[in-house]
Amino acid sequence: MRFLDHIDACNRWTRPDFLPWGMAGEILGWVRPPFAEQIVAASTALKSQSRSGFALEHFGPGLEVLSWRVTDLDPSARDDQLAHICQQLHEQNILPAPQGERYPVTPGRRDQARCSIDRAYAPYFGTRAFGQHLNGYVRGRNGLELWVARRAADRRNYPNRLDNMVAGGLPHEADLRENLRKECFEEAGLSAEIADSAVPVGAISYCRATRAGLKPDIMYCYDLELPAELTPVCTDGEVAAFERWPVERVMNTVRETDEFKLNCNLVIIDFLIRHGYITPDDPDYFELVRRLRSPLP
Amino acid sequence: MRFLDHIDACNRWTRPDFLPWGMAGEILGWVRPPFAEQIVAASTALKSQSRSGFALEHFGPGLEVLSWRVTDLDPSARDDQLAHICQQLHEQNILPAPQGERYPVTPGRRDQARCSIDRAYAPYFGTRAFGQHLNGYVRGRNGLELWVARRAADRRNYPNRLDNMVAGGLPHEADLRENLRKECFEEAGLSAEIADSAVPVGAISYCRATRAGLKPDIMYCYDLELPAELTPVCTDGEVAAFERWPVERVMNTVRETDEFKLNCNLVIIDFLIRHGYITPDDPDYFELVRRLRSPLP
Repeated sequence: MRFLDHIDACNRWTRPDFLPWGMAGEILGWVRPPFAEQIVAASTALKSQSRSGFALEHFGPGLEVLSWRVTDLDPSARDDQLAHICQQLHEQNILPAPQGERYPVTPGRRDQARCSIDRAYAPYFGTRAFGQHLNGYVRGRNGLELWVARRAADRRNYPNRLDNMVAGGLPHEADLRENLRKECFEEAGLSAEIADSAVPVGAISYCRATRAGLKPDIMYCYDLELPAELTPVCTDGEVAAFERWPVERVMNTVRETDEFKLNCNLVIIDFLIRHGYITPDDPDYFELVRRLRSPLP
Repeated sequence: MRFLDHIDACNRWTRPDFLPWGMAGEILGWVRPPFAEQIVAASTALKSQSRSGFALEHFGPGLEVLSWRVTDLDPSARDDQLAHICQQLHEQNILPAPQGERYPVTPGRRDQARCSIDRAYAPYFGTRAFGQHLNGYVRGRNGLELWVARRAADRRNYPNRLDNMVAGGLPHEADLRENLRKECFEEAGLSAEIADSAVPVGAISYCRATRAGLKPDIMYCYDLELPAELTPVCTDGEVAAFERWPVERVMNTVRETDEFKLNCNLVIIDFLIRHGYITPDDPDYFELVRRLRSPLP
């Protein structure tokens, strides 16, 4: 196995499997064609009420677009319209229950969100999701040691797999520092003071097709140097246990296995590059550096 | 001015201005069409001798390729053939004098070089060039301080401009560590022991059209933490003076001015991101992270 294999695994999708959707000439996400039809059907009632809603438009062979007509609506009215459609699709057992957390719907950056959507529906609508991943480490006598988290057995996603010390999604309009404090407390029992000492060190991106739809993700990466005597404590049940590993063990585990949750491998590869553990003597070096930031559709 | 403007400035080129050249179906570089004609003319003598040499091939509108027929030749014979053509073009005042340093000619990585070419001719032939850039810094009481170099007034390229503490090209087959030691000694008077403590922290890439031709470059980046009492000393005349600046001053100078040599801005922007001085609150953050590694042609 090679480090690049993990990047490949996070970047599996095929353009013809998805239709762009958006409004006013902007692409806001990507949906599977059968789901596009279901959205159109669910928005029929809206259309008769207000001439808004979703419609499929054909601009030529292979150029089909799911167009959202929402002129003159403010963001919260857009949120309501999306939520109304999602509610109907949930009642038809096409979508799961909402999670109650808002994610941005944006053609680019978080601060350019045109409206928001429940977190549970982001992958179905293939909207860009943003998150924060933090590597906690200790400068030991024999080099760096990384805190790794073992995910709880009862998690819906990736039970029992290894995880970064702290990792979480960034809700719509959440402040980066506030959200990192919240995640650091919930997942590792860290104080706000310690969370604030985390250093933002870059970002990774990838785009992956899942059963639900498409996940074009941007993850902000943080390094957090911790005192040797601190032991993280999970307070929200996501993590079963924390272990402190020599960085070489983390490196070997990433290189040789799939024990880490899919996208955590990328966050760790970025850490290993920035700290000089993966070096330019690795033939894949430049490919790794470049492909950790995949262009998003 | 924005940080992104420096990335734009390092990525100015237009595909139709260049023809790919290569052999056996591999692209090795990009040349301007008039220079392609001059290469073909200079290789006419070779063709009559050995049926090898350069020829323009038309595969369709806009699909012209400068093809190098060098089957059954070993790398050193290829070097000789390129050198012979370059010598003729130098005698015709089309090319400058050779510099006497070999650069790789590769479709991808340094270790995939098919032959080599004099450093002076790499931009004319639009071959990938590799280099090493090092930021020397000190952990001061009030945060990081960076060593910046003022280039000598008699330099052919970028006289009087600011530079990274150590920066140099990577010759064909040069060992990364050996070359960094050599550059650290020549440009900053650093011992091999100190040079070896530099940490490889990633890479940047960019592609820029120049008067000569095309420069698709990959620069390996290094961080070197230095003791406060050490003062670098230039031993080869490239640098007129070294100054130690608070990182905020370096950041403002990069953001507001063109005082730094073009590609050094990118190396410093990467440093500022990795050390948390440019944060995800900057609206350009992800664009910066991504575009510091431009895909090369």
